[in-house]
Amino acid sequence: MTTTTISRPVCILGLGLIGGSLLRDLTAAGHPVYGFQRSPSAARVATEEGFDVQSDLAAVLQRAENDGALIVLATPMPAIASLLDALGEYAPTCGFTDVVSVKGEVYALVCERGMADRYVGGHPMAGTADSGWSASQRGLFCGAAWVITFDHAYEGEPSESWIRLWEDVVHIARLVGAEVIPSRVDNHDAAVARISHLPHILAETLAIIGDNGGALALSLAAGSFRDGTRVAGSTPSLVRAMCETNHAALLTAVDEAITLLVDARANLAAAKPSVEELVDAGYRSRIRYEARSGSRAQAKGVSHRPVIRFQPGSKGWVNQLIQAEDLGARIEVF
Amino acid sequence: MTTTTISRPVCILGLGLIGGSLLRDLTAAGHPVYGFQRSPSAARVATEEGFDVQSDLAAVLQRAENDGALIVLATPMPAIASLLDALGEYAPTCGFTDVVSVKGEVYALVCERGMADRYVGGHPMAGTADSGWSASQRGLFCGAAWVITFDHAYEGEPSESWIRLWEDVVHIARLVGAEVIPSRVDNHDAAVARISHLPHILAETLAIIGDNGGALALSLAAGSFRDGTRVAGSTPSLVRAMCETNHAALLTAVDEAITLLVDARANLAAAKPSVEELVDAGYRSRIRYEARSGSRAQAKGVSHRPVIRFQPGSKGWVNQLIQAEDLGARIEVF
Repeated sequence: MTTTTISRPVCILGLGLIGGSLLRDLTAAGHPVYGFQRSPSAARVATEEGFDVQSDLAAVLQRAENDGALIVLATPMPAIASLLDALGEYAPTCGFTDVVSVKGEVYALVCERGMADRYVGGHPMAGTADSGWSASQRGLFCGAAWVITFDHAYEGEPSESWIRLWEDVVHIARLVGAEVIPSRVDNHDAAVARISHLPHILAETLAIIGDNGGALALSLAAGSFRDGTRVAGSTPSLVRAMCETNHAALLTAVDEAITLLVDARANLAAAKPSVEELVDAGYRSRIRYEARSGSRAQAKGVSHRPVIRFQPGSKGWVNQLIQAEDLGARIEVF
Repeated sequence: MTTTTISRPVCILGLGLIGGSLLRDLTAAGHPVYGFQRSPSAARVATEEGFDVQSDLAAVLQRAENDGALIVLATPMPAIASLLDALGEYAPTCGFTDVVSVKGEVYALVCERGMADRYVGGHPMAGTADSGWSASQRGLFCGAAWVITFDHAYEGEPSESWIRLWEDVVHIARLVGAEVIPSRVDNHDAAVARISHLPHILAETLAIIGDNGGALALSLAAGSFRDGTRVAGSTPSLVRAMCETNHAALLTAVDEAITLLVDARANLAAAKPSVEELVDAGYRSRIRYEARSGSRAQAKGVSHRPVIRFQPGSKGWVNQLIQAEDLGARIEVF
């Protein structure tokens, strides 16, 4: 049996696409939840829809401190440092998590402030092309991966309260239908550089080169160009924030891309032009991905990820987390 | 008024996805058409479905010569040279076209054999993930771009019979619902390198780099990776044939990609990591493409391409073709 009972109220700071959708789902599930939205007019919109939302950060944090809430930092990266300082001032004992798409930089800010025993990192991998409260919706996280970090447990003996916090963050993700993938910060950032940030870099590149071909090229462009450039239509500021925040890991992925392309270029320029090496390897990789992501299973609403069940804090649990991370497995706690 | 009357029978050599679909559409339209399929068993399957198909190449070509048919070379690139030789032997006066996705190499083979006044190049930009007669279908070309080359007219004074051939090739494309985009061989190959072949190269590259991230990366992969690697699932031999046949133009596109990525790498490695330049340019390019490809118009079955109408062979018609090529416009002849 899997339990999804969160042991405390939830307080969400920032009600954009992710924070707003989380507020909607937790409210609908009947769990005590309230939120902070900086803009008073936006807060009013949410309030009029019946949600428990305020635009006074200090007041919201004091309320969280009073009722021992779990705080979710649901703002973009640039606001995290000042929110951590506000937590230190107004909610000094609350545990917290975040939803930022890059985990290394957040964890560094947390550790600098000595808050690691109160923090569990999170990254729900759900999104739409739109952003803001108006884009938030019920069910956004259903079936999505939600990465939850465990560096603090890996690095030493976490407190009992940290283990309970970790458990509650898992429960939040599970309650809204997400699949929890445990990962350490650096491994997460390296993985998303490959499968989330590099795709943006290559899509931008392809879009520019097609455009360089002028009207004839754009007129002839069909499915492969359309799909290959789709994410180049994402809001530039959001793409920049993701890529620049994860610059170190992204650099590794970009370097791998340059190496593969330089090799392919040499083989194309040879006396007998060939792209055999690249194409055969790429095909095998894509087939492996297709097998793994099991489109058939997905269509039936069945998860394609292996599952590992365990009890947080029990003997060997950190090793089970490492095993799950290696497998890209989802976890369930009991 | 647009006429789509083809002035002679059509003889299709090779009944794979493209040739087979063309045979189905022309047969359904009631136009005299017959085909050649090398494999006797495959020819029998088509015959049993009621199509006029033979597996004796010499006999089919002699028939074409006797009834003055327009011959469509619908085989992959590797078979083209030997088919041209067979045409020279058995159908020495027939006009012909082809459907190969790269035009420079075909045109070189045609010119080497002194057949340029009998040849009009074609490239119907339609396809599915599957190939062969069993994948062929009615309506495959509906709304698709069908590039038709005009180098022979651009290079000098084409014969009256070449102009009639050119017109008939346009009529074939129009009869099956395609939009005719005129282009010279080199401009076509440069354009498709950018919007059709480079997307494959980048998709293979991305697939490999995601796979290099192991199970965790593949487990976290979502929409951007799925779309960005989709065409890496194409049959490797087909991808290689396209890319290697168009190696010179593809080299230019790959070099542009390497330059953009090396610049992005330098900006990512800077003291203040930034991908602003790449992301802003890529976003503008994608938006231009979206505006041009007009997804709304497409949904309504309305072409997004400008149209130019003219009479083949009339004064200034080659300049009109160049103008259409510059605009990526479709043409209609009267």
